[in-house]
Amino acid sequence: MNKQPLDGVTVLDFGQVYNGPYCGFLLAQSGARVIKVESLQGETLRARGDSSPASYPFANLNTNKECITLNIKKQDAREIIKKLATKVDVLIQNFAPGTMEKFGLGPEQLRKLNPRLIYAMSTGYGASDGPYKDYLGMDLTLQAMSGTMSVTGEEDGPPLKTPAAFADFIAGTHLYSGIVSALYARAQTGEGTAIDISMQDCVFPTLATAIGSYYFKGEPLPRAGSRHPAKALSPYNVYEAQDGHVAIICIREGHWRNFCAAIDQPELADNPDFKNMQTRSKNIDKVDDLVNAWTKQYSRQEITSRCQQHGVICAPVQTIPETVEDPHMIARGSLQKFDHSGLGEISLFQTPIRFTNLEPPTIKPVEQLGQSTQKVLREFLELTEDELMSLRKTEAI
Amino acid sequence: MNKQPLDGVTVLDFGQVYNGPYCGFLLAQSGARVIKVESLQGETLRARGDSSPASYPFANLNTNKECITLNIKKQDAREIIKKLATKVDVLIQNFAPGTMEKFGLGPEQLRKLNPRLIYAMSTGYGASDGPYKDYLGMDLTLQAMSGTMSVTGEEDGPPLKTPAAFADFIAGTHLYSGIVSALYARAQTGEGTAIDISMQDCVFPTLATAIGSYYFKGEPLPRAGSRHPAKALSPYNVYEAQDGHVAIICIREGHWRNFCAAIDQPELADNPDFKNMQTRSKNIDKVDDLVNAWTKQYSRQEITSRCQQHGVICAPVQTIPETVEDPHMIARGSLQKFDHSGLGEISLFQTPIRFTNLEPPTIKPVEQLGQSTQKVLREFLELTEDELMSLRKTEAI
Repeated sequence: MNKQPLDGVTVLDFGQVYNGPYCGFLLAQSGARVIKVESLQGETLRARGDSSPASYPFANLNTNKECITLNIKKQDAREIIKKLATKVDVLIQNFAPGTMEKFGLGPEQLRKLNPRLIYAMSTGYGASDGPYKDYLGMDLTLQAMSGTMSVTGEEDGPPLKTPAAFADFIAGTHLYSGIVSALYARAQTGEGTAIDISMQDCVFPTLATAIGSYYFKGEPLPRAGSRHPAKALSPYNVYEAQDGHVAIICIREGHWRNFCAAIDQPELADNPDFKNMQTRSKNIDKVDDLVNAWTKQYSRQEITSRCQQHGVICAPVQTIPETVEDPHMIARGSLQKFDHSGLGEISLFQTPIRFTNLEPPTIKPVEQLGQSTQKVLREFLELTEDELMSLRKTEAI
Repeated sequence: MNKQPLDGVTVLDFGQVYNGPYCGFLLAQSGARVIKVESLQGETLRARGDSSPASYPFANLNTNKECITLNIKKQDAREIIKKLATKVDVLIQNFAPGTMEKFGLGPEQLRKLNPRLIYAMSTGYGASDGPYKDYLGMDLTLQAMSGTMSVTGEEDGPPLKTPAAFADFIAGTHLYSGIVSALYARAQTGEGTAIDISMQDCVFPTLATAIGSYYFKGEPLPRAGSRHPAKALSPYNVYEAQDGHVAIICIREGHWRNFCAAIDQPELADNPDFKNMQTRSKNIDKVDDLVNAWTKQYSRQEITSRCQQHGVICAPVQTIPETVEDPHMIARGSLQKFDHSGLGEISLFQTPIRFTNLEPPTIKPVEQLGQSTQKVLREFLELTEDELMSLRKTEAI
């Protein structure tokens, strides 16, 4: 490839918080022209200000987008959105269910004006059908409803969330997947479509191990900390190192033999207590004890290096300060340093969709609220200075 | 759309476990013809047998694929792979780094034979560059390296994994995203590419809240259970119900006012301790106590209904047995009942990539090991019965 794959594609991005904006971010880094539409107060995360926990995600997810403001509560702004929808390829929105429809801007309404339009929605539970379709949802509550929280935590502790907002981001990635699939189909048929991504649908597959363990055991299982849900694999846990913790997993017998060699105790591989997955699973406490006895003597780096040299799947439990300075991601170009007006020097992530023969576009700082309103409305709708002035006066833009 | 978006696309799927196979699953459910290639023993999950914790994910992720066997360790099989690679659009593999290259089947080697080929790889850390590119990785260790584990768990407990194998599945979704982006580009240029997805890259964005909180506070933060990492939002937690737990989050002032109305205490909204996010964040223990005092009186269903009626973002913490019977997902067609030879009746998930005007293909049971080997090799390579017999004799197929 000598240009970005989505070069020439135009997107109207009404994304909020993580789900929609991540999709818009992936589209922008794949070469699409992404126009981010915000209210006059700015999107939820921008409105929290340039020095808040929200400013980092906002700055990262909205790079390389043209930022315009439209006050959807005004008829004039809604007319502008209808006109823009006839000129773009894709519209993204992850508002609460029914929001856009209420303003006459739902998928049927806009696709009637432009049958080539790909109208992409993502909501907690899917916008089309089912008893929960009008439910509000965010990452935290989808981790609850999906079953994720019920299996996360210690056996004697409460259900827990993971602070990785994976429900939002995996939905945003499926949203991107749906859009590009629809673009591919449209290149052949000329026809657009509407995409209906449910966060709940997207999270369900990730519970494959927990669900498989439940079906296999035939009864509900207690939370299992960092062990396998059915305690069917061992070693498989988080172990103590001198300077923190490491994760180690042996999914095949070969990994276990490699581990025994890595810790200079090759004779363990043939010990009747440990000789295969079934016996190790039965003696899971003994296995975890012997792994801990070894890992406790070394640093995370020493353990990881030795395990990887011996073909054992292992990694340090990195902290957030370590993660944002990860030398591998920096070397790969997956993290890039940036000066942020509110936060100082920060590491921004590049798109994870990487092609071996093409660099993604350079990350450019996020635009100011409404920075491109005039430019975009002039270019797409040929609005005059007088018309723009009048729209500003009535607070439509 | 009147046919599936990837109708006519052909895929050779060397996927293992979750990451690659989920990508193949999404491709199959988008209409591609997916040929799953396994060793003579079967892919890792199949080899564990039809009644194990692995049998559910295997049955779900490999539906609607044609299953063939090829013994990559034999020269004859490698020649067959090279020939197949000239006839298909896409090749997926998520082997340990360097595996396919060692057998002469890496991206450069196969793309030389077929420049239209889209060669899609997913590994723990990305196959192209950086100091960890040869590291082995699986979901558990990527949760460790990515920083996810370090923020998951109780403040006074150890770092924890989440049993949602989201690192694997989010990487598989990015792999699909890369493939369809490349198909879209190829339709214009005629040229394929190689895709290099790193699980570590894919997980990093999901930590946006934790990273934003760290940058905002300027110092490492302790684990925070199910609270916001910087305790900057409240209510935001898992709360006790009569029959389990619920998750509630108020991200805007309006949600808080709605919540006060939902619990029939509208006066709380103006209480100086709780009147805005800053004061609620400062009084987070008080807020959590008053929410718990209310939730403890009701069932998860009562709390969720009342909250949703009042525009409060809330969901029950569903258990795995509840999740696999989720009435909403069943109504949406996102879960379908199936008889499984080893596990009995199970719920299989449908693709989360949903179009409002098109049903995904019907889920068909996973094929037996090697069920389509003859059919595929005859059709694609015009092998005769004698040639097939000889390949079987030498254990190449």
